[in-house]
Amino acid sequence: MAFTDLSIASEATIQPILEIAEQAGISKKALELYGNYKAKINVDQLPPVQKMGQVVLVTAISPTPAGEGKSTVTVGLADAFKQLNESVAVALREPSLGPVMGVKGGATGGGFAQVLPMEDINLHFTGDIHAITSANNALAALIDNHLHQGNVLKIDPRRITWKRALDINDRALRQVTIGLGGPGQGVPRQDGFDITVASEIMAVLCLAGSLADLKERLAQMVIGYTYDRDPITVRDLGAEGALTLLLKEAFKPNLVQTIEGTPAIIHGGPFANIAHGCNSLIATNTARRVADIVVTEAGFGADLGAEKFMHIKSRKGGFHPDAVVIVATVRALKMHGGVAKTLLAEEDAEAVKRGMVNLAKHVDTIRQFGIEPVVALNRFSGDSEAELAAVLDWAEAEGVAVAMTEVWEKGGAGGIALARLVKQELERPTDFHHLYQEDDSIEEKLRTIVQKVYGGADIQLSDLAQKQLVELKKYGWDSLPICMAKTQYSLSDQPKLLGRPEGFTITIREIIPKLGAGFLVCLTGDIMTMPGLPKQPAALNMDVTSDGKAVGLF
Amino acid sequence: MAFTDLSIASEATIQPILEIAEQAGISKKALELYGNYKAKINVDQLPPVQKMGQVVLVTAISPTPAGEGKSTVTVGLADAFKQLNESVAVALREPSLGPVMGVKGGATGGGFAQVLPMEDINLHFTGDIHAITSANNALAALIDNHLHQGNVLKIDPRRITWKRALDINDRALRQVTIGLGGPGQGVPRQDGFDITVASEIMAVLCLAGSLADLKERLAQMVIGYTYDRDPITVRDLGAEGALTLLLKEAFKPNLVQTIEGTPAIIHGGPFANIAHGCNSLIATNTARRVADIVVTEAGFGADLGAEKFMHIKSRKGGFHPDAVVIVATVRALKMHGGVAKTLLAEEDAEAVKRGMVNLAKHVDTIRQFGIEPVVALNRFSGDSEAELAAVLDWAEAEGVAVAMTEVWEKGGAGGIALARLVKQELERPTDFHHLYQEDDSIEEKLRTIVQKVYGGADIQLSDLAQKQLVELKKYGWDSLPICMAKTQYSLSDQPKLLGRPEGFTITIREIIPKLGAGFLVCLTGDIMTMPGLPKQPAALNMDVTSDGKAVGLF
Repeated sequence: MAFTDLSIASEATIQPILEIAEQAGISKKALELYGNYKAKINVDQLPPVQKMGQVVLVTAISPTPAGEGKSTVTVGLADAFKQLNESVAVALREPSLGPVMGVKGGATGGGFAQVLPMEDINLHFTGDIHAITSANNALAALIDNHLHQGNVLKIDPRRITWKRALDINDRALRQVTIGLGGPGQGVPRQDGFDITVASEIMAVLCLAGSLADLKERLAQMVIGYTYDRDPITVRDLGAEGALTLLLKEAFKPNLVQTIEGTPAIIHGGPFANIAHGCNSLIATNTARRVADIVVTEAGFGADLGAEKFMHIKSRKGGFHPDAVVIVATVRALKMHGGVAKTLLAEEDAEAVKRGMVNLAKHVDTIRQFGIEPVVALNRFSGDSEAELAAVLDWAEAEGVAVAMTEVWEKGGAGGIALARLVKQELERPTDFHHLYQEDDSIEEKLRTIVQKVYGGADIQLSDLAQKQLVELKKYGWDSLPICMAKTQYSLSDQPKLLGRPEGFTITIREIIPKLGAGFLVCLTGDIMTMPGLPKQPAALNMDVTSDGKAVGLF
Repeated sequence: MAFTDLSIASEATIQPILEIAEQAGISKKALELYGNYKAKINVDQLPPVQKMGQVVLVTAISPTPAGEGKSTVTVGLADAFKQLNESVAVALREPSLGPVMGVKGGATGGGFAQVLPMEDINLHFTGDIHAITSANNALAALIDNHLHQGNVLKIDPRRITWKRALDINDRALRQVTIGLGGPGQGVPRQDGFDITVASEIMAVLCLAGSLADLKERLAQMVIGYTYDRDPITVRDLGAEGALTLLLKEAFKPNLVQTIEGTPAIIHGGPFANIAHGCNSLIATNTARRVADIVVTEAGFGADLGAEKFMHIKSRKGGFHPDAVVIVATVRALKMHGGVAKTLLAEEDAEAVKRGMVNLAKHVDTIRQFGIEPVVALNRFSGDSEAELAAVLDWAEAEGVAVAMTEVWEKGGAGGIALARLVKQELERPTDFHHLYQEDDSIEEKLRTIVQKVYGGADIQLSDLAQKQLVELKKYGWDSLPICMAKTQYSLSDQPKLLGRPEGFTITIREIIPKLGAGFLVCLTGDIMTMPGLPKQPAALNMDVTSDGKAVGLF
């Protein structure tokens, strides 16, 4: 195939964003244009609605290096609904520059199921992530300035938990020492940089319901502890006003379009491990105000993304998904069935059958939430009929709704069968319920997730986590939902245990309260919050023509 | 006075930027809107012009903590020309978030001589500085990744000169160690962060003539040296394409407006010590394409800003100023006459007279360039008649054109007298010439600046600088213009020597080649490239109302 995502995007016909907005009933008054093809939406200017749109959550099996195409299916499904004359919008995360510059990839879909202008969205977009970087580092500078100027709050420099952030993959910044050079250059201490999408400010922006709520959440963020081990918040520093000021434009959701002209609201993009991994609540709710059906996605597999969507994002938003799509591919199922990445090109229907256990677990999980999922079998050109049949036969036997998708190559037309199945589910009431309640104890909440969602046996708390548990209770922070930071590759906490491991115990290494975001991050294993660049970074193939066209972006 | 800059800006009537553009003959096709009041200009879409506009450079006496109001006079002078029905535009630097969050102040003028939307321009604006931060740090990450992945180029980690950057005041990042944590976390080394406006990329963006020139300059930047002490450039790393891609939108100049509706092109803002301190060349030239008169400014006093404007920016651009305004205030002249900041409120005409020597030197300097300067005496409310008369009498005796300005309080109407004087100079041919030629030796160039511009006796090179001189010649870098990094407070390199010191020697501590920017930075004394926050940062007074209005910004 000579097509690339960039070449397809460049050839596509893009409509003025004012037209997309008009079709969606968004008045010009509610828009702030960023060029002709991007706009921020002033949510306060939208008319009141009778009924908010239904939500279709797109999730996936446990991801593998083979790729599942979840964003592509999300976009293609929305375009399929449009072809069926449904009122539809898609809500997606904003891509981070780190992965864009690091490895070929992005969060704007692929092939003929992409959002436009792809180039802008992948590079700076409307500046939201840069505003978050600014706010994150302004807070860090205010903290270090407080230490330097007398430290009235008695912040213990060894117990500052707020890290600096950059929207880049840069392993050399994971562990640094700062404030070197003598008394005029600040207070020396250990520090580190996270990628901006791992900043708590990203999570806060994505869960805030209003500008006032944003400010209140920013004020609640804990930045460290005093010498007496009392928590210090942004409110103690008096910095929440400045941070909100830096974020007030970034808080407005962005309107763009798919290749087929479906309105796409792209806003926020928190990490899916130490945060909840889905686009902003305000974006999803804005999409629900302008469309009857909103297709959105959550990061990683259903064990992480969908679980957090249910227990964190939609709980906070007071809604729940009306339908769930689980994306699977033959290639990824083969890997769950034990095939190495280098051997994926060889036909192996038996491996697909063995790998079905992973999909089966995620189907079970979604059913536990009271929603009947639809499986999207995202077809790749090398898939054999026997391999595809292995999935379809399993689904028939298990009574699972499944549709093949070919949205990369065909756009919305490749997702019509899926859209029809999803539509059936949307017309049926769900029996939605959360798997745990917020006032369950932390151990109960953790055990519920491990047993019901991961299919594991039990949890184990490290000594550190046990100590932290006592502190969390002391501060009254134990009634927050859990945000599990676990490897995405396995249902367990062992990245190499593919398929459907059983009988495992999940070790909770550390519990980090995120008071602004409103969840407790529970770390299992090593979780990377600042990626590194590969040996051949994608950046080295990038260029611009003399008339300003991107080269090698994807 | 109950007015603040923010309250005046908030009350001002702002016109849609499309109207401002139309009046300036910029077609809608050449614009990319960022909301209704900001736009980027696609320079390639501007029609060809018969004649480029004339340039009025606004510079000042040596700055003091009393403040001179140079940006305010620049904006007010442009508005005065507009009131006189001249075709005029103003070209200014973009404010950095560092000073905005740190101390009350900004680069958007003041009172009734401001640019709008003031709030947006001071916060993120169109994202240019963030794009520069991204490019700067992407390059840093690529360098450290190169070290980590085998270091094929044999870069000496101790001789990497490329630093990281953030658009913030953060002293704790001046000196850091990075790459700690073991073999998986990069190569440990000493590093530091500059404020983004001190990044060479900012200087490059401000001096590039086209996107292709931008890429070539980025490729030429030296990032460090090998173990054999050979220079390593961005081209050696193959990163110039990616950096240009990250900067391609930031390279487009931004159109906004003054309170009185004069088109304002605000673009780029390099530090005025280790860089050349004026808005981008492309912004000035774009302004010259749309207006007969372009009012622009340069950083700090005439010894730094104007000298660099003549020898670096306008030399590169192939033009020269057609008129020069030197801004002075009674308060600042009093400080040059020996009055302490705390005593400025007391009338002291004798001190003003003593301080005139500083203004006199800058007048002489501009005359040496073959231009007859006009002095703007920027009146403050506390100035006495006797103090003002001291300046006017001196000017009359010396044959220097002088006009009083009251643009903060009256806008353009307060600058009419100045505009009339400047207009006279614009109608007279200048006898412009550079004070040194690029192929003069480095020592000759330095001596010329010190003797002719600073009024000093001679130069002295440190041992390090002497060694560097040999290397610069070896690499053939000695024919670049000089970018002097000297304290702005004194004509000498001693910040406390106000007025007009004489007989002094300037010590060149270090010479840093900036091959991309195309100049040799010569450091004298300690030059700060990452400011710190004050004890009470301005950020702590900032806020947003629940309907999104900025509070405490200025």
